[in-house]
Parts: sequence; structure tokens; C-alpha cells
Amino acid sequence: MDHIKPLPSYLVQRYQGWKATTYEKNQSWYRHLGTEGQHPRAMIISCCDSRVHVTSIFGADQGEFFIHRNIANLVPPFQPDGNQHGTSAAIEYAVTALKVAHVVVLGHSQCGGVQGCIDMCKGHAPALEAKDSFVGRWMDVLRPGYEDVAKIKDPTEQARALEKRSVLVSLDNLMTFPFVKERVDAGTLTLHGLWHNIAEGGLEAYDNAEKGFVQV
Amino acid sequence: MDHIKPLPSYLVQRYQGWKATTYEKNQSWYRHLGTEGQHPRAMIISCCDSRVHVTSIFGADQGEFFIHRNIANLVPPFQPDGNQHGTSAAIEYAVTALKVAHVVVLGHSQCGGVQGCIDMCKGHAPALEAKDSFVGRWMDVLRPGYEDVAKIKDPTEQARALEKRSVLVSLDNLMTFPFVKERVDAGTLTLHGLWHNIAEGGLEAYDNAEKGFVQV
Amino acid sequence: MDHIKPLPSYLVQRYQGWKATTYEKNQSWYRHLGTEGQHPRAMIISCCDSRVHVTSIFGADQGEFFIHRNIANLVPPFQPDGNQHGTSAAIEYAVTALKVAHVVVLGHSQCGGVQGCIDMCKGHAPALEAKDSFVGRWMDVLRPGYEDVAKIKDPTEQARALEKRSVLVSLDNLMTFPFVKERVDAGTLTLHGLWHNIAEGGLEAYDNAEKGFVQV
Amino acid sequence: MDHIKPLPSYLVQRYQGWKATTYEKNQSWYRHLGTEGQHPRAMIISCCDSRVHVTSIFGADQGEFFIHRNIANLVPPFQPDGNQHGTSAAIEYAVTALKVAHVVVLGHSQCGGVQGCIDMCKGHAPALEAKDSFVGRWMDVLRPGYEDVAKIKDPTEQARALEKRSVLVSLDNLMTFPFVKERVDAGTLTLHGLWHNIAEGGLEAYDNAEKGFVQV
Repeated sequence: MDHIKPLPSYLVQRYQGWKATTYEKNQSWYRHLGTEGQHPRAMIISCCDSRVHVTSIFGADQGEFFIHRNIANLVPPFQPDGNQHGTSAAIEYAVTALKVAHVVVLGHSQCGGVQGCIDMCKGHAPALEAKDSFVGRWMDVLRPGYEDVAKIKDPTEQARALEKRSVLVSLDNLMTFPFVKERVDAGTLTLHGLWHNIAEGGLEAYDNAEKGFVQV
Repeated sequence: MDHIKPLPSYLVQRYQGWKATTYEKNQSWYRHLGTEGQHPRAMIISCCDSRVHVTSIFGADQGEFFIHRNIANLVPPFQPDGNQHGTSAAIEYAVTALKVAHVVVLGHSQCGGVQGCIDMCKGHAPALEAKDSFVGRWMDVLRPGYEDVAKIKDPTEQARALEKRSVLVSLDNLMTFPFVKERVDAGTLTLHGLWHNIAEGGLEAYDNAEKGFVQV
Repeated sequence: MDHIKPLPSYLVQRYQGWKATTYEKNQSWYRHLGTEGQHPRAMIISCCDSRVHVTSIFGADQGEFFIHRNIANLVPPFQPDGNQHGTSAAIEYAVTALKVAHVVVLGHSQCGGVQGCIDMCKGHAPALEAKDSFVGRWMDVLRPGYEDVAKIKDPTEQARALEKRSVLVSLDNLMTFPFVKERVDAGTLTLHGLWHNIAEGGLEAYDNAEKGFVQV
Repeated sequence: MDHIKPLPSYLVQRYQGWKATTYEKNQSWYRHLGTEGQHPRAMIISCCDSRVHVTSIFGADQGEFFIHRNIANLVPPFQPDGNQHGTSAAIEYAVTALKVAHVVVLGHSQCGGVQGCIDMCKGHAPALEAKDSFVGRWMDVLRPGYEDVAKIKDPTEQARALEKRSVLVSLDNLMTFPFVKERVDAGTLTLHGLWHNIAEGGLEAYDNAEKGFVQV
């Protein structure tokens, strides 16, 4: 285990500050969470991007959201092939074990994964096309979405369109999971699609009537 | 897209509160992040569990941590087989594109995924052994870790031991990624293992000298 | 170069201790900073006083804050006269090259520079009024602020009032820099005023609603 | 004062963490510093760069170093012209009022100010040559040093040479201050020149015998 190093001291200090203040003031809640288990209301599927913290945007405290974060907030289609599917495992656990009431897919502006997908689909990123590119293969999930935005010429507009498309692709793929569809049909689970504008603090939700994303 | 519903109104209200307060006060920073891109210092691999928010424990604001969250904070071994590996994609992006200086794996107490792994390994959870159980197949990553804790009789102690084991298994698997090992060997990337006690607000870090986890 | 002497040995020892511990543990981060450059979030303008270390108060690690320190944390008004203005150069670099999101002016209790200004304004410090007194001429920046506190009789109260005034004078002067005002108006830069009580560990922030400094 | 905004909440949290831990544990020392004043042993003149924190490198606690930080750790020559010289004021205060025993000038690798000076001297940075460029006019202090490194062809080597030159120029200029020279000659003040390699954690001190910088 020689490859494991001590925690950087600035994180030690920050943790100790949290322990002496936030934990101290809220310990009854943390103890409750520890002994009574978690009962989150929603699952959030969001990007790993350091600029997008859904707990901040929704003022969510410990215990509220079951959060899966991966590159570009993608959900692959249902594939019960016995392989390791981390995203599908998280969805299965949230929906069938925790019985969350909502699954929210949250996309965002300036998404590096989505930009990589565009570059790859245009043939400008040969490295991403290699079989052993994990990012490239992961972004393959979004390839079908690219066709809908291929004709947009302005690069910013195109990226934005595919970022929103990534939310819809994920939501469509969610419906291929039998345990999701069944609960959606029974009215015990609802799906939601959001797109967050980092710079402007904007939040748009997919609106069925408008067939598009509308500012919340 | 009939399966997509409007955002629950409590989330709309909270978002609008955030926009009028936190965003308003910090908009210069959000705009900076939007135009200048992200430069996170560390990648955090943590559990989806709603009770564990690494940003809270470390007082981390937008822009600091690139965060991947999956069930039981697991990293599967390096498998460049052309399939979709969301965790591997996140690691590849953080290490090779963002060039983070640290990867921190954060386990925690009362982990439902780890408990499921124990039940499964003891033969008490046939549903998890089914080929089409995404949670079961995902927890297979941790099976080798179970052998080290199989003999522990007290169920709480055993769970705790496997929760910590899950951090070490992930760190070992991280070293199977050539682009991780290369940077660790070159001293440009360090790996860190943590375990968080939800109820007590505790934080333990793996210590090489002690060959175990030690309170921070 | 006969005037340059070897480093005092207590500093050599301490540096070697730092190299063997802090550097050793964080070298991946230092290497990242060395190769990827700095991306600080905020500029801090603080006093040279040995008792005020902003990195300690905010648990800030290498890379977070671009820090200018001068006597009494003063910002002179915008004077593009071709002369050497070290403070203005630091502000220009932080705002236009590094594009920091925040400029924080941090004043503090028991400030020797501020006390000198009071003595000078009261006519009790003729040496500071001499043309060749660098401290006196530098504290001229704060003279306009003295008028607001001239009537306060209690010396401690008066000093405290001028220490806080020094923060506001600096923030007002900051707004005379076109490149600052432009970004403040555009919402890409925010200004903040703080006063630190050394003995009590207090921190007060200027509050627009209260028209005064309020404990954080 | 509408331009002054509340402190970003992540800094509020961090401050409160510091107050509850570091301050709490060390309050006797902070109170001592508040009532007994500062008695720093050394003045440090260092760069504003966010990657260079001299308190970290030398493990210095509150009260030890009187620290002036400006772009590229420069000291302009003695100019008692009645204008505002922030750097000269800081030196005057440290040497004549606080009577520090050492003045240490600390340069560093990857210095943006020094690189700007090189670009300007080569005629590649017309913006820095404008009368109203504060950075440009400030870097004029280093122009005489450029001649010594003008012939070095490798850009990294040249930058490194000028970074070290900036330390020597500052130390030479320090000797033009009568109150500095007098104390150096009397043996009550010593001057020291250092250069810090950010990525490697290196520290080199100017050595009279070697006529150059030598690893500490």
C-alpha cells in the first residue's frame, strides 16, 4: 500500500474546521442518519464537473439526494449482460431499494465530455476513437444524440444543443430499464430533465408542452 | 418525451432562492468558472449515498473537486475492452485531461452497497447473484475484499472492515491503470484513502506506517 | 554582492523540514502548480503585519489567493502617470491577467500604520510629515479617511474606526480603476471589505444594509 | 458603498472552522500578539503569486515575519521624492520602526511578472510599454537586470536567470536606502536572497563565495 499517501494538510485543517462547527451544530441529524439509514426523496444523475454541485443549487442537506455523478450525466441503455455497469447499479439501487420518488438528470454548460463527443463525431479527435479510450467509449452513449445537432453551425450553440440532448438521451435510456418504466407507468416515480448554465446561474427544465428546455 | 415531468415545486423554490442569494453573491466566481474553465485540484471518488457530501466535509466550493460518485466508491480494474466503463472514463478524464494532483477514495459507514456485498458473499442474497442484478454485478468488484473480512463475527465490525476494504480495493485497482501508475511513480499524482463515520462525524485516513485507518 | 549573507540556519532547518514533510506529501500538487500555472480565485490586499496571515484564517493552500501586502492594506487612487505603482500593478495583474473573481481588502486591529496616520494627522508625528518619510507619504492615502474619525475621543475606538475606514478608502479607490469598475459593473468581479481582530480572532465584514462592519 | 458585497459563503465557513479550531487552541498567543504588539525577526519581500507562501516554506507562525508582497518581489531604488512608494514605506517601517534583523528577498520559478518583463524587453509586449500599464512601469525596475540575461537563448533558462536577477536587483536597490545601508554596515541588519522552485520544492540562496545561487 506504499502508493497511498497521507491526506494533504489543508484538507485535514478543513475537515477539523467542519467537525468543530457544522458537525457540532448538526450532530443530532448526523446521528439520526447514521442509525436510521437514508431515505432520500430523489436520485440525481449529474456530471463529475467540479463546477456543478447540485447540493448547492438546491440547498440540499445530507440525506436528501442520492447522487450519481459520471462524465456528462449519461445513462447507457438497459444491458443485463452480467458485466459491470456502475450507472445502472446506482439506478437500480435508488429505484428498487431506496424507492426514490424522482430521478433528475442534470446537464450543464461548458461540458468537456460533450465537447469531446462533438470533436469525436466530427472526426477531429482520433484519440477518442481508440478502443482503449474510456472517455471515447463512454461518450459513444451520446453518439445517437449528435445526429440531431450535427447541422448546427455555431460551435457554442451546437455544444449547448448536445448538452441538452445528453439529458434527453439519458432520460430515454432510463425508460429502457423495466423497473423504471414500470414505476413511471404506475405513477410512483417521475423523471425530470434539467440543464444548468454555470456562468449565469440559469436552470432550464425540459417542458413537454414546449418540446424544449424552459427557464425554471 | 411524455415521461418527463415538470420539476417538483419545492425544488423550483429552492433553486430560485439559491439564484437570488448564493448565485447573486458569487456571480463573479460562477462567470469566471464559465469562461475560464475548471482547474480542480483533486478527484474524489465517493459513494452515491445521500448522507455523504464530500463538499460539506471539506468546505469545498464550486471548482475545487472533480467528483465521481457510484455505489460503494468502487474502482473496477483496468479493462480496455471497448465496453462502456463510466468510472474508468471519469478517472481517465480527471488524470489525463484535467491533470488533477490527487485522487481521493472516500468510503463511509452504514454503506448499503457494502452490506449487500456481505449478504451476497454469505449466500443470503440470491437476488443479488442473478446475472441481471446490476447492483450484484457491480459489487463483484468488491468480492476479493470480502475474503479478508469473512472471519469477522460481529456484523457491525465486519461491515466496517469491508467498507474500509472497499477503499483499498479501489486504490489497488487504480494502480492497474497505466496512466495512473505512471503519474504516481513520477510524483505528479498522489492517491489517498479515507473512511467517514456518518453518525460521529469521524474521518479516518489510511496510514502506511500503521497499515490501517487512523483518525485524521 | 558582499552585502548578501547566508540564510540564517534556523530558516535552513525549517525549510529542510518543510521539504521532507509538507513538500514530500504534496509534491503532486506543487508540480501541477509549476506546470499548469496559477488560477487563484481571489486577490487579497492585506497588511504586512506579521500577525495577520490570511492563508491561516481561511485555511488557504498554495494556489488559492493572489496576495498583495503593504502597510495598512491601502489602495491609492488610479494614477496612470507613468510612475512606479506597485499596488496598482498588482491589482492590474490580478484583475486583467488572472481574472480573479473577488478582491478582498483585509484590515486589522492594532495596525501600526493606521496609528501612525492618526498621530500624523493630530500633529504629533512631525517625522512622518517629512517629505522623505516613505511611511508618512504612504499613509497620506488614508488622510481623507481621518476626517471621518477625527472627533472620536477614545484612542482605541478611534484607531479601530480608522482601521475600518482604511478598508473602505481602499475599496473606494479600487473603483477609480477603470478595469475594476468595468468588471464590477459587468458582474464578473466583486469587492469585499473585512476587518480582523487579532486578539479575539474576530472577523467583521462590511455590510451594505447595516452601513457598517458586522461579525461574520 | 453599493460596490461592496458580502463575503462568499465558502470563506465564511472556512473562517468559522479556523475560529473553532486554530484560534481556539492558540488564543493565548493571539491575545499576546494583540496586546504586546508585533516583534518580527525578519522582513520578507516576496511575490503576490498564489503559489508562493513563505509562511508555509518556513513553517512560520503569526508574529514571525513582516511580509511585503508585490509583483516579482521588486524593490525600486531609493527615491525620496514625496510620492507614494508602498514598497519603500514597508521597508522603512520594518527596518526603522520594527528593527528587523533580516530582510529576505524571495524570488520564484514561473514568475508571470518576470516573463512579462522579458516579453517587454524583447519588444513582444507593446501593451506593457504603454505609459498607463502599471505592470509594465513596475517591471521597469527590472529592466537593468534584463541586459545580463539578454543573450540566453533557451526561454526557460532565460526566465530562470531573470527571476534570480530580480532578487539581486532588489538587494542592490535595498542598499541605496541610507537607513538600510547604515544598519548593514553596523552589522545590525543582514540581507538575504532566495529563489524558490515551485514544482520541485527547491530553495536556492545567493552565495557570495560561489557568486551565484546554491541549493539550501
